[in-house]
Amino acid sequence: MAAPGILRQMQTSETACGVVATWNYWEQWEERVSFFREVEKIECDSIALFLCRCRPPDVVVFPRCVEEVSALAKVCHKHRLPIIPFGTGTGLEGGVGAVKGGVCFSLRNMEQVLDLHPEDFDVTVEPGVTRKALNAYLRDTGLWFPVDPGADASLCGMAATSASGTNAVRYGTMRENVMNLEVVLADGSIVHTAGKGRRPRKTSAGYNLTNLFVGSEGTLGIITKTTLRLYGIPEAMVSAVCSFPSVQAAVDSTVQTLQAGVPIARIEFLDDVMIDACNRFSSLSYPVTPTLFLEFHGSEQSLQEQVKTAEDITQSNGGSDFQWARDTETRNRLWKARHDAWYAALALRPGCKAYSTDVCVPLSRLPQIIVETKEDLIENRLTGPIAGHVGDGNFHCLMVVDPNNPEEMHRVHLFTERLARRALAMDGTCTGEHGVGLGKRALLCEEMGPVGIQVMRSLKDTLDPNNLMNPGKILQREEP
Amino acid sequence: MAAPGILRQMQTSETACGVVATWNYWEQWEERVSFFREVEKIECDSIALFLCRCRPPDVVVFPRCVEEVSALAKVCHKHRLPIIPFGTGTGLEGGVGAVKGGVCFSLRNMEQVLDLHPEDFDVTVEPGVTRKALNAYLRDTGLWFPVDPGADASLCGMAATSASGTNAVRYGTMRENVMNLEVVLADGSIVHTAGKGRRPRKTSAGYNLTNLFVGSEGTLGIITKTTLRLYGIPEAMVSAVCSFPSVQAAVDSTVQTLQAGVPIARIEFLDDVMIDACNRFSSLSYPVTPTLFLEFHGSEQSLQEQVKTAEDITQSNGGSDFQWARDTETRNRLWKARHDAWYAALALRPGCKAYSTDVCVPLSRLPQIIVETKEDLIENRLTGPIAGHVGDGNFHCLMVVDPNNPEEMHRVHLFTERLARRALAMDGTCTGEHGVGLGKRALLCEEMGPVGIQVMRSLKDTLDPNNLMNPGKILQREEP
Repeated sequence: MAAPGILRQMQTSETACGVVATWNYWEQWEERVSFFREVEKIECDSIALFLCRCRPPDVVVFPRCVEEVSALAKVCHKHRLPIIPFGTGTGLEGGVGAVKGGVCFSLRNMEQVLDLHPEDFDVTVEPGVTRKALNAYLRDTGLWFPVDPGADASLCGMAATSASGTNAVRYGTMRENVMNLEVVLADGSIVHTAGKGRRPRKTSAGYNLTNLFVGSEGTLGIITKTTLRLYGIPEAMVSAVCSFPSVQAAVDSTVQTLQAGVPIARIEFLDDVMIDACNRFSSLSYPVTPTLFLEFHGSEQSLQEQVKTAEDITQSNGGSDFQWARDTETRNRLWKARHDAWYAALALRPGCKAYSTDVCVPLSRLPQIIVETKEDLIENRLTGPIAGHVGDGNFHCLMVVDPNNPEEMHRVHLFTERLARRALAMDGTCTGEHGVGLGKRALLCEEMGPVGIQVMRSLKDTLDPNNLMNPGKILQREEP
Repeated sequence: MAAPGILRQMQTSETACGVVATWNYWEQWEERVSFFREVEKIECDSIALFLCRCRPPDVVVFPRCVEEVSALAKVCHKHRLPIIPFGTGTGLEGGVGAVKGGVCFSLRNMEQVLDLHPEDFDVTVEPGVTRKALNAYLRDTGLWFPVDPGADASLCGMAATSASGTNAVRYGTMRENVMNLEVVLADGSIVHTAGKGRRPRKTSAGYNLTNLFVGSEGTLGIITKTTLRLYGIPEAMVSAVCSFPSVQAAVDSTVQTLQAGVPIARIEFLDDVMIDACNRFSSLSYPVTPTLFLEFHGSEQSLQEQVKTAEDITQSNGGSDFQWARDTETRNRLWKARHDAWYAALALRPGCKAYSTDVCVPLSRLPQIIVETKEDLIENRLTGPIAGHVGDGNFHCLMVVDPNNPEEMHRVHLFTERLARRALAMDGTCTGEHGVGLGKRALLCEEMGPVGIQVMRSLKDTLDPNNLMNPGKILQREEP
């Protein structure tokens, strides 16, 4: 906990630096507008955030512009206070927990959409702008930003965690869609990762700083602007649901669809447990077997061809006829059900909390890892419906667990480690899109090996020598 | 120049470390198999390589495996000898010049295609494998690697320089297509940027080391393996040529084609001077006006639709009817003509050398920058036909210049600086795909600003504290 004198200094900087509310966890100030309540609200569903709650920051600041972020970061730097960037708090690996106390930078008051260039397919946004807010803003331009992790996350937060989600198979992840970032570094200086205001569609100008900060989870700097690639809204979209006799049949269909060059926009796998939970939670009535949710984007004519190819492939693998969601309303209902999978899983065991695993393997290894994982779940009496972005080889077990049952918590912990190691043994990664945060630091060491970890650590030490930026995340390290 | 004693040591390490030939520039050894001759062969066309020739390395080593690269790098590290990685020497910014002498690592003897996984759309290659060699190897798999900078470059070299080229508008650059790298660092240690043998299609596991090394131009380490994304060979490909009344009309057609969502594979601009040179050099007879070379990939049915949309757009902008290249032979001839633009430009002034500029701007700024640039060329009596990957906003002036005319060289130098600054003033970059090398280090400072350069410098200092890795490239710095 920061010393009271320093907390007072943060308060006195209120006018200059846009601190509209500060609070001390131990003193429980009346005017604590926010952070804790935000976390409490979200935390009710998530073990990761539940754990964060145990380590709130000492202070929350609400800067209104990059200059204020920079000024506040300089104060933190001077007093060696940890800095925890906060967007919407929708991350799943405990990224916003203040494991060493310190100052939480809530960026919600920086919510401008800046510099929209429709003719160049790019836009720049501040950290308070969420995915849905941007797409609402873009509605009349014929453009959209397709990366969709489900949650209505801050776009700068999505850059910080290298988010992706259901559309990544066609449009890529944040790595491929961030063109430039404005970042406040640990010492308060401001860097533009591709040069200030620049937005060429490609560049070879020196080291790729943009992709060094994308996915750095707040441990290298605070992202205060992100310039994003936009896409034309497809002339037509159509979604479908297809049931399969086995996991293998569903995954084989996925691989063959990609091999056939179908530019599919989403191809989501739900296992029998997951589709059952979604049926109950979202009042649907799909067969309780391995299922694919698919979506096709394109012109009316190209859709016909895409769909025909995909249908031929699924039927040759024993899939059911497609159940269509052609109009926007039905399609939205379908994808809402998919994105509500988290809540559907939770509803399987009222009063429990959830933790989502997040491994990613080469496509060809998917059937084996999913089958083995389902056997492991049954063997260990765990509730973990599976949903996945199978076009990328990425899937999640939504572990539903009673946090007051330490024995069950332990079983879940051992299961998630086995699952991650199974992915590592299949040339995969322990995290496809959620990041490392707190829980996967040891697994990251196994994944990268000692030299890779040493390189990452040296980058961290260089850009943040005092270990102030979101300390304790990604890398395990001693106090400086 | 390294001391003779050290050169002798490099020789004596021959058996252990695969040094199959070494030579000393000053002694002109008989058995100098290679490097200098290679450079001489290529250099005849390029001013950048001409300048490199003035600074050959002291020694060339030809390691046969990563262990040998590592062992040799440890020798260099111990004796503080500069290391210059060499793939095919086809880079255009002097990246292989040994500005401080040292040891050139020619990687030509590491030429294995490793770990092809057709079902996962990935492959791993050693640095001696070129783009064309890989595609020949893949011929029977139905897969290909589409990134195509024109030259038959080493794929690891393409990773090192963040290459792209004509297909990038559809398939991305090396940044989007490298999944993992094996890199020998300055101290000889070996790192796998995404963990050894890993190849998930996406990952959020810690810092993105892969894209830190992609585009680092040999200044952070020696790339000894690269794992690449592959694509299904399209069912059909068709190319076309279209002539326009003005630059604006050609570029407007490009922007509108992209806005219409046509997944065009290549869209290449050639100005009147360039098409005239190509006509002469490749025995073609296209109208001497601004021209687009286009290519469409997809199913037969989707091609019809793509072509129809593109034709409607070009005709609405005053473009000519498409001249078709439907069969493979005609198509190859067309693209050979495009890729021979360098030689076509050189043929405009026999005996001269060439230097390619390489700016990239947002699409909407293309007409203005091309028009201004053409005016500048005329005003300054310079020969610089323009060819460009306009779908990305990237274009090149192929400056043809007499290297023995210092006054003309000076005019070219001033012109290229004006062009780069024009791009910077339009939110663009001084290099879209060739990299910084030697010639653009000052421009990089202008592009990035002092904090960005400082961050790049700190990364270099961290990973290569003795400034041994391809010293003098990308960043200008004092001796350590």
